[in-house]
Amino acid sequence: MKRNVFVIGIGAGSPDYMTVQAIDALNQVRVFFVPDKGAEKSDLARLRREIIARFAINADYRIVGFDNPVRDSANANYRKGVSDWHDAVEDVYGRLLADQLQEGECGAFLAWGDPSLYDSILRILERLRARGDFELDYEVIPGISSVQALAAAHKIPINRIGEPIMITTGRKLQEGFPDNADSVIVMLDGQAAYKTVDGDMEIFWGAYLGTDDEILVSGRLRDVLDDIERVRREARAKKGWIMDTYLLRKPEGH
Amino acid sequence: MKRNVFVIGIGAGSPDYMTVQAIDALNQVRVFFVPDKGAEKSDLARLRREIIARFAINADYRIVGFDNPVRDSANANYRKGVSDWHDAVEDVYGRLLADQLQEGECGAFLAWGDPSLYDSILRILERLRARGDFELDYEVIPGISSVQALAAAHKIPINRIGEPIMITTGRKLQEGFPDNADSVIVMLDGQAAYKTVDGDMEIFWGAYLGTDDEILVSGRLRDVLDDIERVRREARAKKGWIMDTYLLRKPEGH
Ligand SMILES: C[S@@+](CC[C@H](N)C(=O)[O-])C[C@H]1O[C@@H](n2cnc3c(N)ncnc32)[C@H](O)[C@@H]1O
Ligand SMILES: C[S@@+](CC[C@H](N)C(=O)[O-])C[C@H]1O[C@@H](n2cnc3c(N)ncnc32)[C@H](O)[C@@H]1O
Repeated sequence: MKRNVFVIGIGAGSPDYMTVQAIDALNQVRVFFVPDKGAEKSDLARLRREIIARFAINADYRIVGFDNPVRDSANANYRKGVSDWHDAVEDVYGRLLADQLQEGECGAFLAWGDPSLYDSILRILERLRARGDFELDYEVIPGISSVQALAAAHKIPINRIGEPIMITTGRKLQEGFPDNADSVIVMLDGQAAYKTVDGDMEIFWGAYLGTDDEILVSGRLRDVLDDIERVRREARAKKGWIMDTYLLRKPEGH
Repeated sequence: MKRNVFVIGIGAGSPDYMTVQAIDALNQVRVFFVPDKGAEKSDLARLRREIIARFAINADYRIVGFDNPVRDSANANYRKGVSDWHDAVEDVYGRLLADQLQEGECGAFLAWGDPSLYDSILRILERLRARGDFELDYEVIPGISSVQALAAAHKIPINRIGEPIMITTGRKLQEGFPDNADSVIVMLDGQAAYKTVDGDMEIFWGAYLGTDDEILVSGRLRDVLDDIERVRREARAKKGWIMDTYLLRKPEGH
């Protein structure tokens, strides 16, 4: 029996980021696999469930919750840590697909933002397909990423005219600001890596983008650094987790 | 009288990329400004009109067509060429907003893909606002970009695990493959710049993404280069224009 799965990008924050294509896919799904664990996860799981309840008109579906294995962030070898974690996740997903789908039923994973951007789901499905325990087919539905949510909220172009854009992680930014991109988007920054860059930079920062809790700060980095630090601290204390993204841009003419 | 304008990302190819937020915005608009010129432009203008006709439920709107000034691509100074062109575009847009909106009417520009990615509309509106001929307020609605359409069609993650992504132009790629990103997305490539890079790279290429004419080619660059050249030539001959994007990735471990 072949497994058919949708990977549906649900957008990075607002249910209104859902596309017509994503809504159509949602309505073909019989089994939604929804992860639920941790403080952040429980807010996000709630949002996933809200999206299903709002957009799946046909009530003929069921939701299967599961515990996503947690990555060992203490592992000094980042790639190895991620790879071990993927093995564990792969087993969990493999069992879900093997056990929970009946003949002719279509399953779905709802990916936060866009499924192709710093998300492991496509890699996991590719590995499961290669493993060959069962035949597996999947469709990918793009979604509004946090990068786009950030730019729209600040009403700014991401690139300078004809210039490249880099999208990177906090971890990579700490190794130095790239010399070949004047516009750099930073995601997955647990370490406040913006503190390590030139204070002359312009920053466009956003947290909980697209949600009712959205916070925006922008300006010359050295002028707004303290604001961002304070806002982050307060938000994290209040909600228990934070999700933020920012664009750094070299000042014009540098 | 203040001008209120939406910049609505309509997605890069399929009307089904429209988000709920974009559809809601569409239904608040009284005047749609739609450019129509050239072969490519006429296909895209048709798609814009289709989107309006399909999603604007309330028929109480009008469409104002206009001619977008054409950029002088012969100008050897790329940035100067773009800047002159922006001046001309700014005048056209300024006149549209000054002359075509009545009190209380909301205008809109429909941006192809995502408005923040290699699109001049936000820069133009910012300049018009700074010019101050009239008060101007605008909202930006993000859209599915061709980058995401490409990744979804090929069912691939854009980034390698924890690694940066660069988004660049054909023109920049010709100056050399960036040394600090193993995944590079190339847009606006009129010069087939992929021919200048190492044939060992993996390429994921797509044209007319999201449309009925979508074409995908992927593989080791040296193996698929001729295919891509042929497909491009044929498609361009048939439709009169081409719109393509691709991801280049260094082979694993390089
Ligand atoms: C694992 S990545 C997933 C990205 C997601 N696939 C996307 O398209 O945005 C998580 C990171 O995305 C960023 N992010 C996602 N949603 C966000 C939001 N609503 N506001 C701010 N940042 C967000 C943060 O940088 C966070 O660390
Ligand atoms: C002026 S840029 C605008 C990009 C747009 N704002 C976006 O979000 O995709 C035009 C370039 O986008 C890419 N592009 C846009 N739509 C595309 C599609 N449907 N298929 C392939 N490439 C596309 C091509 O590289 C093209 O040269």
